[in-house]
Amino acid sequence: MLQPNWKHGTQSFVNDEAAWVVTRSDILFRNPHLEVRDETVLIPGKDRPRRWTVVGRKKAVVVAPITTEGRFVLIHQARIPVRRWLWEFPAGQVDESRTPSAEQLRQTVLRELAEEAGYELTTDGDLTYLGHYFPSQGFTDEENHLFVAKPVRENQVGFQPEHAEAISQHKEFTLDELRSMIANSEIQDANTLALFARMVAAGIVR
Amino acid sequence: MLQPNWKHGTQSFVNDEAAWVVTRSDILFRNPHLEVRDETVLIPGKDRPRRWTVVGRKKAVVVAPITTEGRFVLIHQARIPVRRWLWEFPAGQVDESRTPSAEQLRQTVLRELAEEAGYELTTDGDLTYLGHYFPSQGFTDEENHLFVAKPVRENQVGFQPEHAEAISQHKEFTLDELRSMIANSEIQDANTLALFARMVAAGIVR
Repeated sequence: MLQPNWKHGTQSFVNDEAAWVVTRSDILFRNPHLEVRDETVLIPGKDRPRRWTVVGRKKAVVVAPITTEGRFVLIHQARIPVRRWLWEFPAGQVDESRTPSAEQLRQTVLRELAEEAGYELTTDGDLTYLGHYFPSQGFTDEENHLFVAKPVRENQVGFQPEHAEAISQHKEFTLDELRSMIANSEIQDANTLALFARMVAAGIVR
Repeated sequence: MLQPNWKHGTQSFVNDEAAWVVTRSDILFRNPHLEVRDETVLIPGKDRPRRWTVVGRKKAVVVAPITTEGRFVLIHQARIPVRRWLWEFPAGQVDESRTPSAEQLRQTVLRELAEEAGYELTTDGDLTYLGHYFPSQGFTDEENHLFVAKPVRENQVGFQPEHAEAISQHKEFTLDELRSMIANSEIQDANTLALFARMVAAGIVR
């Protein structure tokens, strides 16, 4: 797995999670989807303890499926919190644990690719890991892992979103179309934007 | 303000927020930072009502400050929910209202640019709006508005983060450095990644 490189950190210890001392963590609210905690934390390099509201969430994966022809597979999904139907890369939460293994992440990617889009890796296809990102780092511990699946093809089953999902369709877009949808704000979700940024920076798309 | 273009939506009504009927919205938990709601919603184009946990949050702005020399100003901020010090573009919540005006967004951008980084627009500088995005659209209504401030310069005051903020420093990075920090996962927040994606797609950076 790709490891972050902290060369710009002026204090090398600051991204050692063990250096963050949580002196208090009280659960204020919990349901199957999230957990609101009131925490007091000692930040490495700072003297004064800080009190913060933190929302705990499961980790997730996001996948950019790219076909042999270089097209990107997006799904059209109803997103209740923002009252929108959005075009997005397939994504899903990791059920298994708070610190999923590389293999659990990989299996979740392949599952979501099949369920949400009806696609699969070709026999010579592979997943490329592009690191994680934090959707809203001042508010929640949610952490999403980014993958490219290439090349992909439609599977024999077709897309079969879970009962709980509201996905109307999937569609293949060229790179020019994807870039245009990002430029004109038709792509509005952090998952797709973050994965596009990493693909550009890594030279996977230009 | 830039308006989204929904040309890829197959049902033109689906992104009319008024078409989403909220039949029930009960507050399960609330503090000054967030509000957890249990909602029942009729999704446009779907028959069955859906029940969902939604976390309400203030809207926010993010700004990519670019100097006359083409360098990007990032701040180094302690992010308690993820136990990390992160390099990020300056960002902040909009205090005023749930539907901020363009001027309120603009004033928040200039305030955060000054407070978090100690920078200001030059006399011939301007803000460019690059649309909004949703950090975690399956979970929260949080909506962040993206801006480029160009050109910027250090102000006379220096950076003065609020009492509540934990910002250790700011630093200017070249485009090559920024791209490298994105590629190697040193940049880990949705704000910076989403804004980079929009700048690339809009041809502001290459």
